[in-house]
Amino acid sequence: MAAARMPREGRAQQRDNGSCPHFYLGKSSPSSPHPEARQLSPSQCVPGAFEAAAPALECRARESISDCWITPNKCGTITIENEITNPMTEKLELALKWSLNKYKYTRQLISEKLGHGSRTVDLELDYQIDILKDNKKKYNNILRLAQMFSSHLFHMVHIQKQLGNAFGDLSLKSLELQKEFGRNADTQKMVAKNGEILCVAINSFIENVNTLVNKTIKDTLLTVKQYETARIEYDAYRTDLEELNRGPLGPHSLPKIEESKLLFQTYKEKYEQLRNDVIIKLKFLEENKVKVLRSQLILFHNAIYAYSTGNQTQLEEILAQFHIKVKPGEKATPWFDEY
Amino acid sequence: MAAARMPREGRAQQRDNGSCPHFYLGKSSPSSPHPEARQLSPSQCVPGAFEAAAPALECRARESISDCWITPNKCGTITIENEITNPMTEKLELALKWSLNKYKYTRQLISEKLGHGSRTVDLELDYQIDILKDNKKKYNNILRLAQMFSSHLFHMVHIQKQLGNAFGDLSLKSLELQKEFGRNADTQKMVAKNGEILCVAINSFIENVNTLVNKTIKDTLLTVKQYETARIEYDAYRTDLEELNRGPLGPHSLPKIEESKLLFQTYKEKYEQLRNDVIIKLKFLEENKVKVLRSQLILFHNAIYAYSTGNQTQLEEILAQFHIKVKPGEKATPWFDEY
Repeated sequence: MAAARMPREGRAQQRDNGSCPHFYLGKSSPSSPHPEARQLSPSQCVPGAFEAAAPALECRARESISDCWITPNKCGTITIENEITNPMTEKLELALKWSLNKYKYTRQLISEKLGHGSRTVDLELDYQIDILKDNKKKYNNILRLAQMFSSHLFHMVHIQKQLGNAFGDLSLKSLELQKEFGRNADTQKMVAKNGEILCVAINSFIENVNTLVNKTIKDTLLTVKQYETARIEYDAYRTDLEELNRGPLGPHSLPKIEESKLLFQTYKEKYEQLRNDVIIKLKFLEENKVKVLRSQLILFHNAIYAYSTGNQTQLEEILAQFHIKVKPGEKATPWFDEY
Repeated sequence: MAAARMPREGRAQQRDNGSCPHFYLGKSSPSSPHPEARQLSPSQCVPGAFEAAAPALECRARESISDCWITPNKCGTITIENEITNPMTEKLELALKWSLNKYKYTRQLISEKLGHGSRTVDLELDYQIDILKDNKKKYNNILRLAQMFSSHLFHMVHIQKQLGNAFGDLSLKSLELQKEFGRNADTQKMVAKNGEILCVAINSFIENVNTLVNKTIKDTLLTVKQYETARIEYDAYRTDLEELNRGPLGPHSLPKIEESKLLFQTYKEKYEQLRNDVIIKLKFLEENKVKVLRSQLILFHNAIYAYSTGNQTQLEEILAQFHIKVKPGEKATPWFDEY
């Protein structure tokens, strides 16, 4: 925490020395007294490389944001001098903003990992997210098992067909065992046919659960990821504002606090917006998930049950009930072969 | 046929020139005028190497057989001079006999393949042997398919157990889908248990059919192989005798015909003995095969049928009926893992 504060103390001294106006001017002018700012390319602003130069960059980016983006009326003459349409300058400013944000994000994250600082917690929402993540793993496990099941069933059906033919052939050639070979041939062919229908039902189950898990749930978890990032950013700017409010008041303290308040407000809104998005998405996902899973679990259970009890009519009815069509030639293709 | 006759014509000339007494003497004495005969080791008498030296070897071996084995009283003085207890001489004589027999066998076989000469045919027996060989291939195919079936079933049972646990776990944690997950868990566990019993029944089927095919039938086919070899040898000596009877009569013709008759008789008896062995073995094999296969086909059919109709009680009764015990921990080990 002490390490995180040091750069900001240094920056405060710099601003107290009145270096700010020259800094803004230099940043946009070709004859800038701060050539290192112009030379800084976006690629140099990666989070790792940023750490060392963080205090100075933070100061400049903060000023940049406050002048050109959040408080354009402050230091008005300097803002007019800025070549806003210069793409290089714009890119540099964007890189600086990105770097500053990344730095604050990383600092907050490390601080949380080390158990320092404070973090905003929504117990109910976090619990729901944890449950969703855990369920996704569990559903993926069921998907994996169902895929393996489909694969083995497909091979078994193929073997049963071959066995049916082999027994049938021997029933014609072995007069003394004609009956025994014949009955085995008939049973193998019947079981193979049922297996083929079951394979189609299981492949449909896999396809629908796969869409739920790897599209719908994945999409919600993407919003959750954005929400989690927004929460860390929000906490980072909240901590900044709290530190400024707790710090000594200097000649530039009030504008800095104002800037910080605006930034805090921006990230707070972003966080709350994403939090609402997550809550809504979780609600709809839960409804959709229950609906899809209920339907698919009934399909899976009924198909397995009908197959296990040798009820071919029921198996065919299940396919019709779930609008699953069996195309000739594609009957029992295992799921993994389709994708 | 002309090529096959040539060596024998050459040999006949050799004997007419009176080279025989010297030949016998030299064969057993260390100071033999035929050192190549002593140097011939059994390893040199392989069928391939034999072809070139066949005429001379045939002459010597024929004399050896007629002197020491079949007509010991002919050229008596020379027989007394033979060191019968000398192991080297005995080995040499055995090698010569073996080589002569192999030569005659090969000559007859080539003659038959080329469509020359005559062969003894037992249509009824040959038909039975062909059927047995064809059946062995068919039973081996069923064995191979049953082994693959057992392997896939074993893996399916394993997957169904895992699915049962996964569904069971989710039924406890998903209140809204508790019933659907729960029913799936129960069905998977039930089907897995039935699959485990079916696996044991199929492994028993595989084990018994494997014993029938790769032990009992294999043993009969070994006797068939000996019978087929004896038939070719018999035909070879029969052709020899017929040729001698058709040929011109010389001073040594009658003893040669007598020798040939004795050899023919010996191989005829051997052939007939093996033919009888094959007939008896085929008869017993047929009875045994029908008995074993009937039992195993009933087991296979009933087990598959009970499994496919979800009749666990019937499955267990089948195991009891066929005295198949399920050892704990070894329940559904696939057949290929046991061997």
